[in-house]
Formats: sequence, structure tokens, C-alpha cells
Amino acid sequence: MSATTFETMRLSLFRLKQNRVFEAFVIAVIIISALEIGAKTYELGPIGLAITEYMDLFITLFFLIEISIRFIAEEKKKEFFKSAWNIFDTLVVVISLIPIDESEMALLARLVRIFRVLRMISIIPELRILINSLIKALPKMGYVVLLLFIIFYIYAAIGSFLFNDINPVLWGNIAISMLTLFRVMTFEDWTDIQYETMEVYPTSWIFYMTFIFLTAFAFLNMVIGIVVGVMDAENKLEREKTEPSMNDLQDQIAQLSAQLVKVQQSLDSAGSGARSKTEN
Amino acid sequence: MSATTFETMRLSLFRLKQNRVFEAFVIAVIIISALEIGAKTYELGPIGLAITEYMDLFITLFFLIEISIRFIAEEKKKEFFKSAWNIFDTLVVVISLIPIDESEMALLARLVRIFRVLRMISIIPELRILINSLIKALPKMGYVVLLLFIIFYIYAAIGSFLFNDINPVLWGNIAISMLTLFRVMTFEDWTDIQYETMEVYPTSWIFYMTFIFLTAFAFLNMVIGIVVGVMDAENKLEREKTEPSMNDLQDQIAQLSAQLVKVQQSLDSAGSGARSKTEN
Amino acid sequence: MSATTFETMRLSLFRLKQNRVFEAFVIAVIIISALEIGAKTYELGPIGLAITEYMDLFITLFFLIEISIRFIAEEKKKEFFKSAWNIFDTLVVVISLIPIDESEMALLARLVRIFRVLRMISIIPELRILINSLIKALPKMGYVVLLLFIIFYIYAAIGSFLFNDINPVLWGNIAISMLTLFRVMTFEDWTDIQYETMEVYPTSWIFYMTFIFLTAFAFLNMVIGIVVGVMDAENKLEREKTEPSMNDLQDQIAQLSAQLVKVQQSLDSAGSGARSKTEN
Amino acid sequence: MSATTFETMRLSLFRLKQNRVFEAFVIAVIIISALEIGAKTYELGPIGLAITEYMDLFITLFFLIEISIRFIAEEKKKEFFKSAWNIFDTLVVVISLIPIDESEMALLARLVRIFRVLRMISIIPELRILINSLIKALPKMGYVVLLLFIIFYIYAAIGSFLFNDINPVLWGNIAISMLTLFRVMTFEDWTDIQYETMEVYPTSWIFYMTFIFLTAFAFLNMVIGIVVGVMDAENKLEREKTEPSMNDLQDQIAQLSAQLVKVQQSLDSAGSGARSKTEN
Repeated sequence: MSATTFETMRLSLFRLKQNRVFEAFVIAVIIISALEIGAKTYELGPIGLAITEYMDLFITLFFLIEISIRFIAEEKKKEFFKSAWNIFDTLVVVISLIPIDESEMALLARLVRIFRVLRMISIIPELRILINSLIKALPKMGYVVLLLFIIFYIYAAIGSFLFNDINPVLWGNIAISMLTLFRVMTFEDWTDIQYETMEVYPTSWIFYMTFIFLTAFAFLNMVIGIVVGVMDAENKLEREKTEPSMNDLQDQIAQLSAQLVKVQQSLDSAGSGARSKTEN
Repeated sequence: MSATTFETMRLSLFRLKQNRVFEAFVIAVIIISALEIGAKTYELGPIGLAITEYMDLFITLFFLIEISIRFIAEEKKKEFFKSAWNIFDTLVVVISLIPIDESEMALLARLVRIFRVLRMISIIPELRILINSLIKALPKMGYVVLLLFIIFYIYAAIGSFLFNDINPVLWGNIAISMLTLFRVMTFEDWTDIQYETMEVYPTSWIFYMTFIFLTAFAFLNMVIGIVVGVMDAENKLEREKTEPSMNDLQDQIAQLSAQLVKVQQSLDSAGSGARSKTEN
Repeated sequence: MSATTFETMRLSLFRLKQNRVFEAFVIAVIIISALEIGAKTYELGPIGLAITEYMDLFITLFFLIEISIRFIAEEKKKEFFKSAWNIFDTLVVVISLIPIDESEMALLARLVRIFRVLRMISIIPELRILINSLIKALPKMGYVVLLLFIIFYIYAAIGSFLFNDINPVLWGNIAISMLTLFRVMTFEDWTDIQYETMEVYPTSWIFYMTFIFLTAFAFLNMVIGIVVGVMDAENKLEREKTEPSMNDLQDQIAQLSAQLVKVQQSLDSAGSGARSKTEN
Repeated sequence: MSATTFETMRLSLFRLKQNRVFEAFVIAVIIISALEIGAKTYELGPIGLAITEYMDLFITLFFLIEISIRFIAEEKKKEFFKSAWNIFDTLVVVISLIPIDESEMALLARLVRIFRVLRMISIIPELRILINSLIKALPKMGYVVLLLFIIFYIYAAIGSFLFNDINPVLWGNIAISMLTLFRVMTFEDWTDIQYETMEVYPTSWIFYMTFIFLTAFAFLNMVIGIVVGVMDAENKLEREKTEPSMNDLQDQIAQLSAQLVKVQQSLDSAGSGARSKTEN
């Protein structure tokens, strides 16, 4: 195949990829694959099983073709794997190719098929933007998450030391204790846990109260931090787009002032000229 | 009936419809209809039943007359059914006309009578504005809801595949699993569900943790998005109403500058005039 | 007692009332009264009972004297009862005077004594401001509360009609149903209620889902409304206090423009004068 | 040791303290100490116990050396104990030196070792800033917390008086009642408590409803207050950093106006000069 023929094919595939009808069709297949996954969770008769099997084959092949088209249509092949979404898509498609049999891998292969639904996000641009903005917000709250983790760790260690003998199911070791504390944070039957330890340590309510206040406070701080961050970014964007900034106004006023100075100078020279003439 | 007589009647009905006393009376009847519905949920003696029956008849007739007045008072009949509130009102009134007997439809007719209370919203303008603004906010969060649904769907599929054998009541199929996950999201006895699956899959706490974090995060994002949206709209409205914008100020300063240029030109010509004279 | 003597006494009482030491003493007595109320909830020996009885007498008398001082110190007696806080204080003191015996009123009298703690709010100005601002925020959310009530009422009516036979303890009549729905809104064991009705009506999860979404949505709207309202008020206050408004700037620029027009006119007349001279 | 030798040592220690590798090493030891604490909550064999014992010794010594370095490196020894973080660090290290035996103090010594993890906060500057800003936010909500406490106290007193005979475990005295009310505030099985008291006092739902509304309202107010406060501070900082304020603009416009006045005066005098010449 000559380079020109390949380039012609690449361009026609690129046009196909950009085509809105093709995009809608890909979304439709993803939805069908989602419905097929849903259907498989129900008890199906032999006919149903056969249908889902054929559908599965069709979806796998379709996704394989679609990803191939996208790969061939890409001008610079290296760029293709620089996008995390493309890597994700390729992985999902390739792992789907592993045949499902009654082996150990069967369950994993089945689970990977579920992740096909996530391709919805990589296809619909609005969802991709949403996810990207969520990921961008993550580092901002990194230190608050670290702080929350330290609070959890310390309380879990204290809980393990003090309450291990009372209820090892809840406070057996530091990992179990952290799970129990997460439960306390979600207020799920936390008073039962509290009443149990209060029978041995009557003042252990302090443990729960301070924990709830500290985590709620740190969590609140995190939420506020994100809200403020999002709003600031929004405001800055807003201002830059539609309105001149205070700095722009200041510059303009400074220019005005410079103009006035020039007027004053002209006037002074004219005045001195007139005066000199009068003096003549 | 001649067209003029009809027009006269239409105008007098329009005046009646606009009348504040009439409006207050309509609201009163809606409240009475609400109270009647509430009363019917109690055990009533034969006298009570008779009273509610007569009241029901009166309310049905009153609403029929009221909606007729509003329809006749409308200048352009086509416009009447362009308002979703008018269609809603008409439907509620018309379905109320179906006589309640011991047939299958009886329950439905009874339920429709309850929706009469919703007429409160279509009558009080402030509530109508509130509902309209709520509906307007819906599309803004469309994609976040879609994202939430995808998260639910994937976790429900995984849950069905893995936990179906542990507890089919909670994880029987994808629909039941989604209901169970909604329960987990509201933190309602979610640890019981977790402990149950952790006996078979000891690491299944990862399933619940990631689900809670993802949904909480997406939900938080949605809330923040709406807050930011509402505030932006509010701010824009606020600025436009009471204050000149930065753009207005910039325009004014630009005008000032133009004026100054003119002053400079006058001065220059005057100066040159004076100078030319001096040179004479 | 002559009017002058009374006026002298009034002024000295006014000075006493304004005195910071006196104020601190009143707060101390309120705290003591709070502690006494708390102590009474414990099992007390005969000595403890005697002490609380004497303390009660002292507190009652002290509050009576204090309110008298404040009343006498007031210049215009009519103004005194225009403050809701003064009326509240007087009521609490007067009802405290009713002697506690084993009559029906004993419990009420005891409860009134508890409300003495609320006098903390009427004494500390910061708390009074806080409460006033909370009360001011109430009408803003009036219509959202009405909307929430309508949602509750309709769902309670539907619940009573459909689920009454399933569990009359939860859905017996519209009042009980509203209490049950409030429980659902707080996510307190709401799935138990749902599973119970789903056995008869398998699709009744729609009832709970839509209810949760509607109330959460309306509640969210209310919170956002208040936040936006508070921020707007804050922003307006902030701007007015520390900075000139955009309007001020616009006025100043308009003045500048007027000054420039005058300069131009002076220049024109001077120019024409100079020109006329030149033409001579 | 002469003063100069000591000063040389102090400076070399100061350089060591500032060294990024040294800092990273300190953080590593803190993480190891955290892991060691976590490990101790598991059942360890004799080898594991020996290892943790040696590690404990190493960590204690390392922290002792590190705090000594920091103390010696400090130029003004008095300044060292002015930082709350330094006092905290010293306390944790000193109490760790108490040998763990089977005495009463053993548990306390073990708990203190857990607080070593908190040294993470005193070492990582970002966390220290975070904590400082959290502490700064505390006084702002002081009065709302006081208000919340008053609400809790009054409801707890009422609860103790009315419901003590129904369930002394929940309403035995004012302290227990406050704990129960905190449970109600977190919606944890609050309806069970409500149904229990409603059997004796059928209208006691008013007690719970008003309590939930008051605390939720006060809490909401607190959150909003903090959000508004944080945003205001943020906004002020933002404006001061990047943009001239409205006041700056106003000053500049005022300067422009003054310049114009001068131009007008020059023009007047020139004009009068020219006119006087013309008149000649």
C-alpha cells in the first residue's frame, strides 16, 4: 500500500470519526453494551443467553474496529497514546478480547466488560471536561485529605489500644479501627459503638465527640476550600471575558493624565508666547 | 349571543379573574380541598363522610367554574393551552369529574384529587416563579446527573456479579443493586451490607469506600455548580440593575480622552495662530 | 416622692444598669440559674434539695429586682414593652413567681424556670444580634417552606391512601404520615419503611425516590437562597463602607467631562478673540 | 567550650536543620513511627515485638536528638518556647522518655507515643498553615457555638424533666440528655427515641422537630458565616494583590480634576492677557 493510498484512507477515516452520525452510532453501541451488561444480571433463558452472547461478540468487534479507525485516523501515532482516554479505551477493548471461559480470569474479563460503560465518558466531550475538572480539583485538597488521614490514623490507634478488648470486631487492629471510624463519620449506628465502650470507659464519649467535630470541621474546610477555589476561577474568567479590569481603567486614566500634562505644556508655551508678545 | 355581548362578558370575567378577592377565594377553596383530603385519611363517622362528599362536590364544581372563567376570560384561546400550568389545571379538574365508585379507577380518581393541592402553586405567583427557576436549573446539572447514573450503573453491575450469591435480596439484579446503592449513598444501614459482603470478599470495603467517595464528590460538584451558577446570575443581575459596568466607565473615559484630543487640537491651532501672528 | 427625687433615682438606676460590673453579675446569676437547673436533673440528697431551693428563691428575687431596675431606669415606660426581649424577660420573671407545689401548674412553672437560661440571649448583645439576624432571614425562605409543606402534604396524603393497610402505625392518617416522611427525609431507617411497602406495591420505591429528590432539591434551593442573600447583603455593606461605588466614579468622570467642556469653551472664545484680533 | 565554638556549632546545626534532606529524613522517621504504632495494634510474634521495641528506642532517641538540634540551632532560646509547636514537640519527646512498664502510666505513655504522628503537622509547613487557619476561624463562630450550647442545654433540661421516667438511660440527667440530643442531631436512630416518648406524651414530636430545626438552622448559619468570612478575606486579599482599588481610581480621577482646574486657570489668565491686549 503506497503512502498516498494510506493517507487518503486516513483522511476518509478521519472524516468518518468526526462524523456526527458515526459518533451517535458509537454512543448507541455503548448504551446497548450497558443494557446487555444489565440484562446479564437477570436470570435469562437459553434464548436470552444466546442473544447476549452474540451481542457481546458484535460489541467487542465493533469496539475493536472503532478504536482501529481512531488509531489509523490519528496523524501522529505517538500522540494517540499521550491521551489517557485513548489508553483507557484501548485497554478496555484489548482485555475484552480475552475469551470468557470457566477459568479464573473469567470474572475479571466480565468486570472489564462493565468498564465499557465508562467509554461513555471518553466519547461525550462534556463528560470528559467534567471529569478533567474534577481531577484538576484533587491536588487542591491534597493537604486537607492528608490532615484527615492523620486524624483518622491517630484516633484509630487510640481506639485499637483502648477498645480492642471490648470489641475486637470493631477495634481489632488499626485497619479495622479506621473502617469503624469511617462508619462513625457517616453517623451509621455510631451510638451503639459509643454506648458499648462507655460501659467500660464512661468518658469515652469525648473520643467520639472530638473525632466527629475534627473530621466534620476538616471536611467542611475542604468543601469551603473547593467552593472558594471554583468561584475564584469562575470570577477571574468572567471578568477577563466580559469586562475591562481595574488595571485597564487605571492605565486609561494614566493616559488621560499624560494627555492633560501635554495640554498644560502647550498652554504654558502659548501663554508665554502671548505674554512675550504682550510684553513687546 | 352576539360577539359584542360575548366580549362584554369576557371582559367582566377577566376583571373577576384579576380581582384580588376572587383570587383569595380560590386559594381558600384550594386550602379547604387540602383539608378535606387530609380529613379523609382519618376514620370518619357517617356524618363526616356525608360532609366530605358534599364538600367534594362543591370543590369539583367550583374548580370547573373557575377554570371555565379563566378560559373564557382569555382573549386568545390558543394561548390558554400554551401555558403548562393551565393544561395541568384543566387535567386535574377534568379527571376529578370522573365519579368515584368501587371500580379500578376509584383509587386513581382519589389520587388525582390530591393533586388539586398542587393548584396552590399554579395560583400563587411566587411559588410559580420558584418552580420555574428550579426547572431552569435542571439542564445545568444534566451532565452531572448522567455521570452519577453511570457511576451507579457500573457499581450496580459489579455488585450484581460479585455479591448476587451472598444476598440476592440486595444484589439480585442491576435494578435491585441500584436501589441498594442508593441506600448506601444515604448511609442507611450501609455497614450491615458491607460487613455481609466482607465475610466473603474481605477487601470489598474498597467497593463501598470508592462508591461513597465518587458519588459524594460528584454530588458536591453538582451542588457547587448550581451555587456558582445561581450566584453568577444574581451578581450579573445586581450589577446591571444598580451600577454602571466597567465597560460603561471605560466608554466614558474614552469619551473624555476624545474631548481632550479636541482641546489639544484647538490649542494647537490657537497657538499656531498666535505664533503666526507673533511671527508677523 | 417628688418628681425630681424619682428622676435622680431613675438616673442612678440607669447608671447601674449600664455598669459593666452589674451586667457581668447578671450574667453570673443566669449561669448559676442554669447550673441549678442542671443540678436538679440529678438525684440530690436533702441538703442538695435545700440548697437548690434557697438558690431558686435568690435567683427569682434577683431577677425580679433586676427587671424592676431596668423598668424604672427606662425613661419612657411605653418604650419598655415595645422590645420583645423586655416582654420575654418580664414574662419569665413573673411566671417564676408562681409557687411550685404539687399542683398541675408545678411542671409548667418548672419548665418556665428553664427558659431563664434564654435570658442569656437577651443580656449578651452579640447573641441578640445573632437571633435578630436569624429571624430576619426567615421571611426570605417563607415560600420555599410553603413549597416544602405542600410536597410533604401531597406525599403524606398519597401515603395514607396507599399504605394505610400495610402499616397504620406509620401511615395511619395524614399527620402520622407527615411524621413518617420527615423520618424518611432524615434517612432514619427509611429503607425498612420502603421494603415494607414494596412487598405490596413493588414500584413504591418511586414514591420514596421522588420524595427524597424533591425535598432535597427544595431544601438545597433554600440553603442556596439564604447563602446568596447573606452574601449579597454582606457585599453591599462591604462596598458601601470602604469603597466608592461605580456610580460615584461615574459621577466624578461626568464632572471631569463638564470641566473639559468649559475648558473647550474658554479656548474657543480665546481662540476666536485671538483670531478676530488676527483678522483685524 | 568558648562562645565562638558554640556559635560555630549552632550555625552548622542551623544549616543542618534547614537542610531539605534532613527534613525529609525527619518526615521519614515520623512515618516509620506511625507505621510502628499501627503495627503494634496487630498480634505480633516475639520477633515482631523485639523489632518494634528496638524501633521505639531508635525513634525516641532520634526525636530527642532532633529536638535538641532545633533547640541549640535557635539563636534566641526564649523564642523557642514561644512557638506552640515547639512546646508540643518537646512535650511529646520528653513524655516518650518515660519507660513503659506495667505501671499505671504505661497506657498514658503508649498514648503519648501516638501523638508523635501529630509531629507530621509541626514539620510540614502546609499542614501547619492549614491548622493555624482553622484555629483562626474558631473565634468567629464562638457566639454561634454558645447559642448552640444554650439550645442543647435548654432542651436537655426539658428532656430530663419530662422523659426521665420513660427512659433514664437516655434522659437520666442533663449530661446524658445532652448526649442523647447530640445523637438526635446526627439523626442516629432518633425516631426510636421519639416513638418511645410519644407513647407517654403524644405531642412530644414537637420537642424533636423544633430541636432539629433550631440546631440545623444554627449550624447552617455557622457554616454560612464561615464561608462568607473566608470568601471576604479571600476577595480582599485578591483585590489588594492584583488590582488597584476603587479608592485608588477615585484618587487618580481627583488628581485629573485638579490638573484640569490648573489648565482652566492658565487658560483664564492667558485669555485675560489676550483680551487685555485686544482691548488695548
